[in-house]
Amino acid sequence: MDIRGENLIGATPVRGSAAPLHAVAAATGERLEPGFPGATLADLDRACALAAAALPAYRDTAPEARAAFLEAIAAGILDIGDDLIVRCMAETGLPRARLEGERARTVGQLRLFAGVVRDGGHLEARIDPAQPERTPLPRPDLRLRMVALGPVAVFGASNFPLAFSVAGGDTAAALAAGCPVIVKAHSAHPGTSELVGRAVQRAVRECGLPEGTFSLLFDSGRDVGQGLVADPRIAAVGFTGSRGGGTALMRIAASRSVPIPVYAEMSSINPVILFPAALDARGEAIGRAFVAALTLGAGQFCTNPGLILAVEGPGLDRFVAGARAALAEAPAATMLTPGIHRAYGAGVAALAGHPAVETLAEGKAGDGLQGRAALFATSAASFLADPHLGEEVFGAASLVVRCRDAGEIAAVVARLEGQLTAALHIAEADHEAARELLPALEAKVGRILVNGFGTGVEVGHAMVHGGPFPATSDGRSTSVGSLAIARFLRPVSYQDLPDALLPDALKQANPLGLVRRIDGVLRA
Amino acid sequence: MDIRGENLIGATPVRGSAAPLHAVAAATGERLEPGFPGATLADLDRACALAAAALPAYRDTAPEARAAFLEAIAAGILDIGDDLIVRCMAETGLPRARLEGERARTVGQLRLFAGVVRDGGHLEARIDPAQPERTPLPRPDLRLRMVALGPVAVFGASNFPLAFSVAGGDTAAALAAGCPVIVKAHSAHPGTSELVGRAVQRAVRECGLPEGTFSLLFDSGRDVGQGLVADPRIAAVGFTGSRGGGTALMRIAASRSVPIPVYAEMSSINPVILFPAALDARGEAIGRAFVAALTLGAGQFCTNPGLILAVEGPGLDRFVAGARAALAEAPAATMLTPGIHRAYGAGVAALAGHPAVETLAEGKAGDGLQGRAALFATSAASFLADPHLGEEVFGAASLVVRCRDAGEIAAVVARLEGQLTAALHIAEADHEAARELLPALEAKVGRILVNGFGTGVEVGHAMVHGGPFPATSDGRSTSVGSLAIARFLRPVSYQDLPDALLPDALKQANPLGLVRRIDGVLRA
Repeated sequence: MDIRGENLIGATPVRGSAAPLHAVAAATGERLEPGFPGATLADLDRACALAAAALPAYRDTAPEARAAFLEAIAAGILDIGDDLIVRCMAETGLPRARLEGERARTVGQLRLFAGVVRDGGHLEARIDPAQPERTPLPRPDLRLRMVALGPVAVFGASNFPLAFSVAGGDTAAALAAGCPVIVKAHSAHPGTSELVGRAVQRAVRECGLPEGTFSLLFDSGRDVGQGLVADPRIAAVGFTGSRGGGTALMRIAASRSVPIPVYAEMSSINPVILFPAALDARGEAIGRAFVAALTLGAGQFCTNPGLILAVEGPGLDRFVAGARAALAEAPAATMLTPGIHRAYGAGVAALAGHPAVETLAEGKAGDGLQGRAALFATSAASFLADPHLGEEVFGAASLVVRCRDAGEIAAVVARLEGQLTAALHIAEADHEAARELLPALEAKVGRILVNGFGTGVEVGHAMVHGGPFPATSDGRSTSVGSLAIARFLRPVSYQDLPDALLPDALKQANPLGLVRRIDGVLRA
Repeated sequence: MDIRGENLIGATPVRGSAAPLHAVAAATGERLEPGFPGATLADLDRACALAAAALPAYRDTAPEARAAFLEAIAAGILDIGDDLIVRCMAETGLPRARLEGERARTVGQLRLFAGVVRDGGHLEARIDPAQPERTPLPRPDLRLRMVALGPVAVFGASNFPLAFSVAGGDTAAALAAGCPVIVKAHSAHPGTSELVGRAVQRAVRECGLPEGTFSLLFDSGRDVGQGLVADPRIAAVGFTGSRGGGTALMRIAASRSVPIPVYAEMSSINPVILFPAALDARGEAIGRAFVAALTLGAGQFCTNPGLILAVEGPGLDRFVAGARAALAEAPAATMLTPGIHRAYGAGVAALAGHPAVETLAEGKAGDGLQGRAALFATSAASFLADPHLGEEVFGAASLVVRCRDAGEIAAVVARLEGQLTAALHIAEADHEAARELLPALEAKVGRILVNGFGTGVEVGHAMVHGGPFPATSDGRSTSVGSLAIARFLRPVSYQDLPDALLPDALKQANPLGLVRRIDGVLRA
């Protein structure tokens, strides 16, 4: 499939006329062809107009039609074949196996949402039947369902060029909810974006959906993205990226004459808490496993373990010894973009040069645009004294905070900002101590895991990939898993409507076969 | 029960030392005793500290204990007896029957949420069991439940001194969710607020809950309310009131270093659309029923029918004749506060003096602080030309917009801001025309009703009292009905936790007897 450097505005490929964006080979920094001339504000306006026009028909699609559309996108992505993997490897520096896995995850995500749409649980159908004999006033017939919020703007992430980009989790959830989507392509992988965008565009056409159901826009600057969030036809925003980028979009959304929700997944250092009995039993093995998680994908995961908390002593020493040994063998790895590589280098240098921080170990040195893993240590007192030590360094760097006792661990946890994940390494004898810490962790994080690391984010029904600010802009939500669809829905209730005018989800005969809440009780 | 003019800070009644607030008799404008010296910022700080301290224990209460607490509040409100009704009548000017009904609604609301807590559906319990044999990677055990957001600030409404005030819908929903509550009392009914607040305070004590589960603060100005929303220990805000007040709180919440959700229910004119066959069959009766809804509670409902849309002709003339006849008999009624009376007078005068607006009829004249009902008319062209004609006039005033055809009705609907309700009056022959308008209405409103008026807001499972901005600050929510609890919850997922460390909602043996989603399928 050709990459032409074109925006996809509804059914029409449109060559932009703003400054061109160029992909860069992650491994070498060389410019890749073709250029992607940026969308103009007129292009943006056209995409928003098409999305608004598509909304009434698209959000009213029958569950089976919408599910088939999601599956057609999945099939279309697979149909691109190896061209997609090859281009994506060049643009991101991620290895083939990782990208093939990520493609499977992307396809699986779309299929998961197809299943959600068919199940219909997200519609929250509720019926409170009329009680005409009630006194002093009769009770009306009341029925409730969720409806699509409206057109959604999606900003792709650099670190998941397939699973959190053009047809990634935000797009899949929004489309499943019945919302048209306009994607602002990430500048780090425009060719990958165009290939996937064309697959979505083709699925729209083949499924006979309104063309405005999907558009894809390129921009070398910020005008298109900011204009998208400000546009009155956009009803919600999905974003994965930096804290600075996410909070900028939040400000634009909050200052609109009609404010809209922004779901930005931004910043997390994902504390790992090592408990004494676990360290005694397997400190060195945990250290080795930690390095495997730390260095996965050059550490470029939102859930990368950036902070280790433990009580100092021989157990923690064994953990450090295991981590040191594993780091000595850990190769450097190409980072996603020269900019990310530069920022990582600056973050590592700041830690290395911090007077209260000791460099414990480094991975193998790399060259060019490769990132070298690094492990640092500090004391709890130092960590508590300098908030900068709690900031995310995006890449394979982590900081061990040596605590004097469990109380100091709790004090550090109490000081943490919101996080995506917290991992506890425990043995049976640690259960009571872990139980005491759980309430504080629940208040801070979206996912708590035991004896593992947060880097694998399972796409299922019980996953929360979210958490209090600044992990996300809206801790009431998840951006991974089937509950992510709830971000793009709102409730409407219907009082005393004749059956013929009710939506299918609420008709008396239950033609969609939904589980519905009748007078508050779930009924199949 | 005595009214002492004291803040309730946790278990302690505290006489404020800021400027005192005085209640005013709604009927006469006379000052009522005692004064309520305002809470200081130190009092506010103490209430927030207590709420934060209460959070871990309160949000972890077992369902039965939390439900019993809500029921104890309900019983305590009834125990106040007639003193509550008498004081509330004096402060609000609302008649006895209305306030007795509102008390029943308030008590019913608390009991509804007790049932919700026992049912546990709001916990959204989900389990994706481990698949140790899965390739290429085993699947972990993942479980999800909702947890309380944190301490909630509640701002009482003037127009529902019981059902949307100290122990009203926002407080009941937040407490049901497991969130401690700090109420900023509405200045229009401080005595009512203190009486109800003491009942809540007593229930906290009798149920053995942490004292910070509930506090009540008075303020004659804005410092306490603004400070509450800005306080880092507050996690969410519930508000019912003016658009100006709600958007001011939204701005404070969005500019915090950790932004928080604001659920503000603000402004709505609740369009009523009269279809031709319905007007032909019963135009005059609809006109009379409309006036009954318009003048209920002096028109001081968020769901008051402030806008009538219909095609001009003999049917609409019959509606107007019915409304005129009913208005001629409609007595003036005391409004909630002198300020609301003044604003209503100004709103009515602006409509009466508008060059494109005709005064169709007025209710009986009143005296002093009574509001006189008024019905106006204009053309669709004039309505579309002047956005001010679409602004809420809080009270018993409404505007008929005469349209030339169904297309003009659709054009007016397209221009409307977000609304709480839309009412359609239809006969069988109007079904097709109504069906065409439904998608546009769904995009604008929280509740669509047929052959009635929105003023009755049923408290049940299928109610949505919400709607797109500016009806509310967050159209993804409802402030009435059991779904209101969702505003104060966020999801947390648990990966590979030993059963002993899991919350009861997610333990393998299902000790709470919840319906849970297992691998995506609901199971009893």
